[in-house]
Amino acid sequence: MAGYVQDAIMLLGDSLTQGGTIPYGFCQQLADAYNRKLDVLVRGLSGYNTTWIFPVFEKMFAKRTEREHVPNVQLLTIWFGANDATIPGEQQHVPLEQYKANLSKLVHMVRDPSSEYYSPETRIILFTPPPVNTIQWIEELRSRDPPKTELDRDFNVTRQYAEGVLEVGRKENVPVVDTWAMFYEAAGREEKNLAKYLTDGLHLNAEAYKLVYNALMKAISENFPDIHPDKLNMVYPKWEIVNNGNYMELLKDSAVRK
Amino acid sequence: MAGYVQDAIMLLGDSLTQGGTIPYGFCQQLADAYNRKLDVLVRGLSGYNTTWIFPVFEKMFAKRTEREHVPNVQLLTIWFGANDATIPGEQQHVPLEQYKANLSKLVHMVRDPSSEYYSPETRIILFTPPPVNTIQWIEELRSRDPPKTELDRDFNVTRQYAEGVLEVGRKENVPVVDTWAMFYEAAGREEKNLAKYLTDGLHLNAEAYKLVYNALMKAISENFPDIHPDKLNMVYPKWEIVNNGNYMELLKDSAVRK
Repeated sequence: MAGYVQDAIMLLGDSLTQGGTIPYGFCQQLADAYNRKLDVLVRGLSGYNTTWIFPVFEKMFAKRTEREHVPNVQLLTIWFGANDATIPGEQQHVPLEQYKANLSKLVHMVRDPSSEYYSPETRIILFTPPPVNTIQWIEELRSRDPPKTELDRDFNVTRQYAEGVLEVGRKENVPVVDTWAMFYEAAGREEKNLAKYLTDGLHLNAEAYKLVYNALMKAISENFPDIHPDKLNMVYPKWEIVNNGNYMELLKDSAVRK
Repeated sequence: MAGYVQDAIMLLGDSLTQGGTIPYGFCQQLADAYNRKLDVLVRGLSGYNTTWIFPVFEKMFAKRTEREHVPNVQLLTIWFGANDATIPGEQQHVPLEQYKANLSKLVHMVRDPSSEYYSPETRIILFTPPPVNTIQWIEELRSRDPPKTELDRDFNVTRQYAEGVLEVGRKENVPVVDTWAMFYEAAGREEKNLAKYLTDGLHLNAEAYKLVYNALMKAISENFPDIHPDKLNMVYPKWEIVNNGNYMELLKDSAVRK
């Protein structure tokens, strides 16, 4: 099948994942680092929350019965919350307890042997939503046509959702990349200083994505060192060892060393 | 299956394709432009020539019998020649006539109804190899350990291989992105000026990849407008039209409008 020799990294999330395909975005940097080893499948859906993602995830992630025909997802990143954390009354709002339950449900879909989507070789990393800079965000809302004059997100509410991801990570024993704390610390714990990393108070610029990529690679090194790019085989052999004859025995079924 | 709802663009080639995953590389820019529409499968194998690629392509491209389980490759780019054009005696050298025959064979594998790899929905675009700047390249070779003191590539030989691709394109009725002419013109038809686009006399920098991406998008617009990103559906609906109920009927089997 197309690319069937390469396993994959699936990046599941909202606009923060979708936007990671820009230069220096974490999707681009992963595709570069895992070149010839793992394919990077970007599944970032702008505006989505952890409730809306279920019917989509059920379509995009292989059922165990389909698994023989598809590449293994060696790593699944799950990054939601920026939309779930909109305040009550907003269309995208998901209550905190429901948000945490949804994240746990996603993890269980992949991890539980009884699940239709059970995928024992899939490692999971959760991300916390980054902090929102309401000083920038209200300007973005006011600039819309028609202008929106009321904030739909709150600095401390998003912080609670970030803490919720840390709870889920502990409960489910899933590593967490805490982008909320990372950016808040990098901004000197000053909401206004987040403008250094946020294009509009909510979305990330290239400098921010560089930090996200470095934090993800650190999480991979610490939790799943066997799939760090330095530890993987190239699926196809280097040209120096190929020749015009038969070298297919050198082809790996997967970049991951058994 | 993983990503089974999204069809793909497969980028087949050598180090010039493999290197396109850098920021502003054509692989990154395609992944960004086709976000939520088509997956970009980078199949650039550094050092490979059009002879060595066959056993690999037979593994990475779906057979017609496997097609039901896999995403359709809506676009296949084929970009070889930088290594085939090494001078006779070099390990990577492929004679010009053989190179042209190999490119035609790749096209026929995908296009011929009698082929095991027949894929009628796969559009094909060929690329010519870029010009080599031997003034830079000999310095690169001399800097190696052990140093190589003789050039393994020649400016006019690579030009002949580029012309060979144009011939194959005419013969097989396949559009060609002529990177050789594009860079030579951009360099004012001065070999030494190619240093503006080449890192070492052979490989492309970000400025060069921006030109490659623009030329590819122009070729798509002119030859296959139905798969220009502006003409494609998003596979998953926009968040504004989803809700907590059932919206799976909005899911597209493919981004390509039937």
